[in-house]
Amino acid sequence: MQGDDAMHEDEASLGEFELIDRYFGPGRPSVAGASDAARRSPGATRRSDVILGIGDDAALLRCPADKDLVAAVDTLVEGRHFPAGSAPRSIGHRSLAVNLSDLAAMGATPAWATLALTLPAADRRWLEGFSAGFLDLAAAHGVELVGGNTTAGPLNINVQILGHIDRGSALRRSGAQPGEVLAVTGTLGDAGAGLALVTGRAVSADRAVAAELIERFEYPTPRVQFGMAARGIASAAMDLSDGLAGDLPKLARASGLAAHVDVERLPLSPALRSLAPLAQAREWALGAGEDYELLVAVPAQRFGDLAAAAARLNLTLTAIGELRRGTGVTWALEGLPFAAPGGGYDHFR
Amino acid sequence: MQGDDAMHEDEASLGEFELIDRYFGPGRPSVAGASDAARRSPGATRRSDVILGIGDDAALLRCPADKDLVAAVDTLVEGRHFPAGSAPRSIGHRSLAVNLSDLAAMGATPAWATLALTLPAADRRWLEGFSAGFLDLAAAHGVELVGGNTTAGPLNINVQILGHIDRGSALRRSGAQPGEVLAVTGTLGDAGAGLALVTGRAVSADRAVAAELIERFEYPTPRVQFGMAARGIASAAMDLSDGLAGDLPKLARASGLAAHVDVERLPLSPALRSLAPLAQAREWALGAGEDYELLVAVPAQRFGDLAAAAARLNLTLTAIGELRRGTGVTWALEGLPFAAPGGGYDHFR
Repeated sequence: MQGDDAMHEDEASLGEFELIDRYFGPGRPSVAGASDAARRSPGATRRSDVILGIGDDAALLRCPADKDLVAAVDTLVEGRHFPAGSAPRSIGHRSLAVNLSDLAAMGATPAWATLALTLPAADRRWLEGFSAGFLDLAAAHGVELVGGNTTAGPLNINVQILGHIDRGSALRRSGAQPGEVLAVTGTLGDAGAGLALVTGRAVSADRAVAAELIERFEYPTPRVQFGMAARGIASAAMDLSDGLAGDLPKLARASGLAAHVDVERLPLSPALRSLAPLAQAREWALGAGEDYELLVAVPAQRFGDLAAAAARLNLTLTAIGELRRGTGVTWALEGLPFAAPGGGYDHFR
Repeated sequence: MQGDDAMHEDEASLGEFELIDRYFGPGRPSVAGASDAARRSPGATRRSDVILGIGDDAALLRCPADKDLVAAVDTLVEGRHFPAGSAPRSIGHRSLAVNLSDLAAMGATPAWATLALTLPAADRRWLEGFSAGFLDLAAAHGVELVGGNTTAGPLNINVQILGHIDRGSALRRSGAQPGEVLAVTGTLGDAGAGLALVTGRAVSADRAVAAELIERFEYPTPRVQFGMAARGIASAAMDLSDGLAGDLPKLARASGLAAHVDVERLPLSPALRSLAPLAQAREWALGAGEDYELLVAVPAQRFGDLAAAAARLNLTLTAIGELRRGTGVTWALEGLPFAAPGGGYDHFR
């Protein structure tokens, strides 16, 4: 344990291993020595299937014998995935949340993560907030950080998540069948509105509304439990990271089908509805990314079972359309063709 | 397969998925349509234990039942791990090589990799060279690229490697015993000299010498086969990424021991010796990183077995010192105390 004195030494003298160890490993500040951000943290998860964690050339992990391994990777870049100057705690949370969301989309159980952190400087307050946001969410999902490195350079946060799943039970984008119901968890567009509020492109007179929407952007909830519950019921799934208008075509294409959405059915939160006119709310719901809700295809006769599973997790599941034979995605508003906004977020378009 | 015409479309119109698919996946340019850099590439590895690769939210992988999973992650940042303007093929090779080297240090068998690429722009020539360098080395080691993402931003290359190893057989930094021999594979300092040549800090009149040393920096050979052969013989291992003077103290500390090195025993290549005075060559061998040779501890009576295993791989193994009771690392040159250069490369010092 580091004492309070040790906390005041110059961070610039900390080496790479010490940085990882101090903020993410056993050498993490004790409650007494930590700032407020770190104090709220329950501490790092330790799993019995981690044979060797941070500190050697590689981690040694024990994968359950009857399971498949599930691996995903995602990167956050300042100014692109979050505004410059964002709260480090939010950045830490989101860097893991976007990866957990990928596992949720497969129906997998998360287990281990690695973190590659490129930082302009080793700033104590930033690292405290970031590590608290990361490790709190990791603890909530029983994930252990088993490897990492830090590099000096323009801010870039890369997380790889590993999990496992019963063989043959993973949800894929390609499993949808014609006639199945398209449904989404939770509400859409909140994170888009939250980002607009953070960046000043939207303004709210109601502080509670603004706080709720900003929270949805800064601290998205990956639908891990729902993803696991959807195995054996849903036939396809993906997470909504780039916006429904950008993501749905990927699921339809992977399944070799067309998709149709009735835009009036998109689930919009009361907070979003109170912030903006319906047209603007729908634009965020369709075109803004970062919601990290799940999009699923489910046979019509199983929709009730899946909605009930969602309800047990205090989550809504809303049917928004269906899969059809053919290709492409069609959008309708009150029965009339609707032009969805530009195809979602894509880094190199 | 992409035809030649498709190659000439504006890369700026390529989306994230298309980029990954075109340069790293099944949509990779055919030999006829590819540039010279891509033409030399044998194509991407396909493994039977990859149930689902690039293209869904996550990859599905089958870990052998009696093996442990081994995971490592490493980042390359321009201007820090390679000079700005480096050949993209070298960057692609090195981004995977540094990770393979981590698995080599554990004695593990590499299997799968993910790649997170942050790029200022989607430049066709750069991506062709990078992917050829990455995929050629992956093919040489039977590694399949199973996941990836691309993001726009300052150049940052992050690779995660996954492999497996017989349970309980991994080499660790912590396994060394007092009295054991310290040994290194290959020769040290070549990459440091190569980097000095690339950046103009060193000059060689002999083109062949310069080319050999630069090759050692740009295309390091991870000692994967040797690492596997060393299991059951060596008692501890790590890879030399930050220079012997920086890395050896980590192995000694992890094993709870002191280490002693006789500097005159450091293996120096003829090319390095012809480039620089002995003192300079030793400084690179001790203080420059990027060699990616392995440092091992081995019982004295097994050193011959390990050297023979190295020889079967056309690799030298050189005893450079020993482990002792105590703490810290001592260096001697011809029996007299020697001050090793500053502790190796550490990103935040």
